[in-house]
Amino acid sequence: MSLTVITYDGRMSRWEPNARARLENAAMTLYLDRGFEQTTVADIAERAGLTERTFFRYFSDKREVLFWGAGNLLDLLVRHIDTDPDAAPLDIVASALEEAGALLSEHRDRSRERQQVIDANPELKERELIKLASWATTMSDALRQRGVADPIAKLASETGIAVFRLAFERWVYEDDPGDLNQLIRESFAELRKMTAPH
Amino acid sequence: MSLTVITYDGRMSRWEPNARARLENAAMTLYLDRGFEQTTVADIAERAGLTERTFFRYFSDKREVLFWGAGNLLDLLVRHIDTDPDAAPLDIVASALEEAGALLSEHRDRSRERQQVIDANPELKERELIKLASWATTMSDALRQRGVADPIAKLASETGIAVFRLAFERWVYEDDPGDLNQLIRESFAELRKMTAPH
Repeated sequence: MSLTVITYDGRMSRWEPNARARLENAAMTLYLDRGFEQTTVADIAERAGLTERTFFRYFSDKREVLFWGAGNLLDLLVRHIDTDPDAAPLDIVASALEEAGALLSEHRDRSRERQQVIDANPELKERELIKLASWATTMSDALRQRGVADPIAKLASETGIAVFRLAFERWVYEDDPGDLNQLIRESFAELRKMTAPH
Repeated sequence: MSLTVITYDGRMSRWEPNARARLENAAMTLYLDRGFEQTTVADIAERAGLTERTFFRYFSDKREVLFWGAGNLLDLLVRHIDTDPDAAPLDIVASALEEAGALLSEHRDRSRERQQVIDANPELKERELIKLASWATTMSDALRQRGVADPIAKLASETGIAVFRLAFERWVYEDDPGDLNQLIRESFAELRKMTAPH
């Protein structure tokens, strides 16, 4: 199972070309084939032609293979919240979420596979929920740091995440959903319509 | 630790007057005093002057002491969603949440204690989050059964739960928050203001 690679410069090394992507691909294939529960880190490493030790250099456990990208997305969201000091809170949140949408758009196949793995496992579904809740909290903190009042900051973030989640679900589950950011904009438009005076 | 009670009619019996409330009070005192993790079912039963067996007749585990009421609230929400077929989805959700608010209003002290226990334990915080997400899903299903289109049903429920949660947080954390349903109405008003064209 252990594999020593001679790298391009001829030295024996534990550095592995493209190790993270190889591990991620191997993990996803196994999660889909035999299920998340039934897959071990040893299985993933073996399939990727890498060692368990290399696996743990990239991921803290087999669950993190599914969640490591979330941190990058959250950084993106928070960074974006700082850019436009004059916009309304919900517009700031909406445009930050479109930044995340743009990044995700490039990975629809992987997003669909990932969703399939998550949907098959209640514990992973809970983890996904907690991830999104923590995004809302972090965005809300970022808005507050910009001077947005507390209930407004929370309301904009929580509502934004709800809208984003619905758009994301359509994007991964529907057969020909079109562009993710278009779906995000549609969901925000539906929210505005739903809350308009009648 | 085991205790046999002579009930008011003189028979030896395992029926215990007001057992659920006694167990709940005992549990809450211990959770607040020594922490949720450090409290066992045996501790709770002993403090309530009841047996562990009696405890398990009412609660499946020590966590359920904090969550058994959620089922009643959810029933109330869903029942209410069926009452007014002509109202707009978000109004139906808002008025269902006010039903829940009215019920909770009678238990502010207990709600505050419960929140304190939950806030001190990450696992309980996750459970609370999952509870609220399942309320949103169940309300959304109920709306769909009434013929509300899918994205609208989800959007109204998720947004409603976000609004409810913020109002509930103000109600339990603030010193003199006033009426819970007043806070729910204020949060909905803030949502409408936030989403209005500008």
